[in-house]
Amino acid sequence: MPAMYCHRCDQMAAIRMKEHRLQLCKEHYLEWFIQQTQAYIQKFHMFNRSDKVLVAVSGGKDSLSLWDVLWRLNYQAEGMYIHLGIDSEDHYSDASEAYCRQFAEERGLTLHVVNVRERYGKSVPEFAHMKKWGKERPCAVCGVAKRHIMNQAAIDHGCNVLTTAHNLDDEAALLMLNTMNWHVELLRRQSPILEASGGLPRKVKPFCRFYERETAAYALLRGIDYVEEECPHATGSTQLYYKGILNQMEHEHSGYKLNFYTNFWNAREKLFGQKTVKDAGDGNACPNCGQPTTADGLCSFCRMVNSSQA
Amino acid sequence: MPAMYCHRCDQMAAIRMKEHRLQLCKEHYLEWFIQQTQAYIQKFHMFNRSDKVLVAVSGGKDSLSLWDVLWRLNYQAEGMYIHLGIDSEDHYSDASEAYCRQFAEERGLTLHVVNVRERYGKSVPEFAHMKKWGKERPCAVCGVAKRHIMNQAAIDHGCNVLTTAHNLDDEAALLMLNTMNWHVELLRRQSPILEASGGLPRKVKPFCRFYERETAAYALLRGIDYVEEECPHATGSTQLYYKGILNQMEHEHSGYKLNFYTNFWNAREKLFGQKTVKDAGDGNACPNCGQPTTADGLCSFCRMVNSSQA
Repeated sequence: MPAMYCHRCDQMAAIRMKEHRLQLCKEHYLEWFIQQTQAYIQKFHMFNRSDKVLVAVSGGKDSLSLWDVLWRLNYQAEGMYIHLGIDSEDHYSDASEAYCRQFAEERGLTLHVVNVRERYGKSVPEFAHMKKWGKERPCAVCGVAKRHIMNQAAIDHGCNVLTTAHNLDDEAALLMLNTMNWHVELLRRQSPILEASGGLPRKVKPFCRFYERETAAYALLRGIDYVEEECPHATGSTQLYYKGILNQMEHEHSGYKLNFYTNFWNAREKLFGQKTVKDAGDGNACPNCGQPTTADGLCSFCRMVNSSQA
Repeated sequence: MPAMYCHRCDQMAAIRMKEHRLQLCKEHYLEWFIQQTQAYIQKFHMFNRSDKVLVAVSGGKDSLSLWDVLWRLNYQAEGMYIHLGIDSEDHYSDASEAYCRQFAEERGLTLHVVNVRERYGKSVPEFAHMKKWGKERPCAVCGVAKRHIMNQAAIDHGCNVLTTAHNLDDEAALLMLNTMNWHVELLRRQSPILEASGGLPRKVKPFCRFYERETAAYALLRGIDYVEEECPHATGSTQLYYKGILNQMEHEHSGYKLNFYTNFWNAREKLFGQKTVKDAGDGNACPNCGQPTTADGLCSFCRMVNSSQA
């Protein structure tokens, strides 16, 4: 293999991005990655420097990189970690929290931590084991809990924007899952930006066009310490299955994921006739927490917590 | 492996259909296959015994099986073979025509043959080699030519229904291609039934829910002689690529193709708000052939033929 040089200077390249026909040294990669993030934020009008942004961090490479980039770009970004109570062999939740705390401390940033068991009486796996909610995987319960808690934290801390670090691999796999199963209502709502509504903050995904290997390269080259384990419950999930299929298609056709995902934006407008998507529909307010819900009474999170106390 | 018995009698099974949890002997399979076809025809109101149906036959297993089944079900079904002029080593077009003629003769059925070179001056590969129309593959030209010629034959022979033998593997691969590339207008029109409009016959696909191995099993067990070669130009096509991906997914999740394809029917209604789909839009009539076209002047087929004579 011939020596690989940076396209912007005479240093050796640290990464080659086939899909962008671009190879960059460490310094220029870190610069490119930050510029790209800023460009996405502006292109989609995600937020500006007067917004107060809450970054949902898991302790993994994507979310800590996102927080790092927003901090370097001088956005008002506070972190929030949700301790789900996943007590695997390697103490997944405790370890993840420690990485988040260390990251925030090193940079003098504010981290909010919500411990699900301490705050709501049970951990996510414990909620999932309750008879009515019990499924093979706690992932559905986890989704409901995270959504509720993130919204609540944004409201509690006066943040008008909530950001998650979903990357292209995440988003494309979810899109493929929703498409191949024809989940029309979920397709309607899949967007890198969900407008504020029903008292909920705007929700944005500034990393949605970065391949997973690009966010991993950023964390690595920036020297960010992060939890490398995946959630032990993710193994064998449907979304991971589609990630595998898309990886294969990307391998055979460079740029496949990016085209599939970004071409959907135009298609979504054609299919649904809406340029913007709101987070909440015209639901009621939950009489307990006040968050919007499609249910007549309590929202599904509050029903779950209530029934655990019965 | 334990002995495999027919689910309807005590004979050994000839085929096992995992996706239907059904295994049948030769006799019951042939019966099942015909019953299923009749059920699809009725479910989608494709045609009845007073309609005059033109069956597009290629000499392959799918189309000859379809013609055989329609004949056994006492529909008024005439065949039409289009000789495209594909002169590969094994004389693909000549050989295919011979299989169609033999099939019609054995059953005393009417076969109409259109030889593209004799009727329009050039074969399909020759049209495709013309400068303006030339592409790497003649498939686009072939699609335009077949569509025009099939419509014309239906009109010429007074057939109000045109049927093709696309199977589930064909339809699911096309659907995946159109979906993953977000060809919204093609998705809108992908349906097992296109209603008559603009002087064109109704177009129907009675085999759209049969796996390719099911139509192959029918041809084999019925003893139909058919051309086994695929069109030499199909190798490496995008649709074949998606067939491969779907085969892999079907292997991992039995019934995948069938769910993906049939769930789309409901989704299409939700996405486009139309229960039925017309073949032609509100286009003009081509001043030469009279068929509907979205162009202002000649339709693309007539333009192609005209420019070959210039």
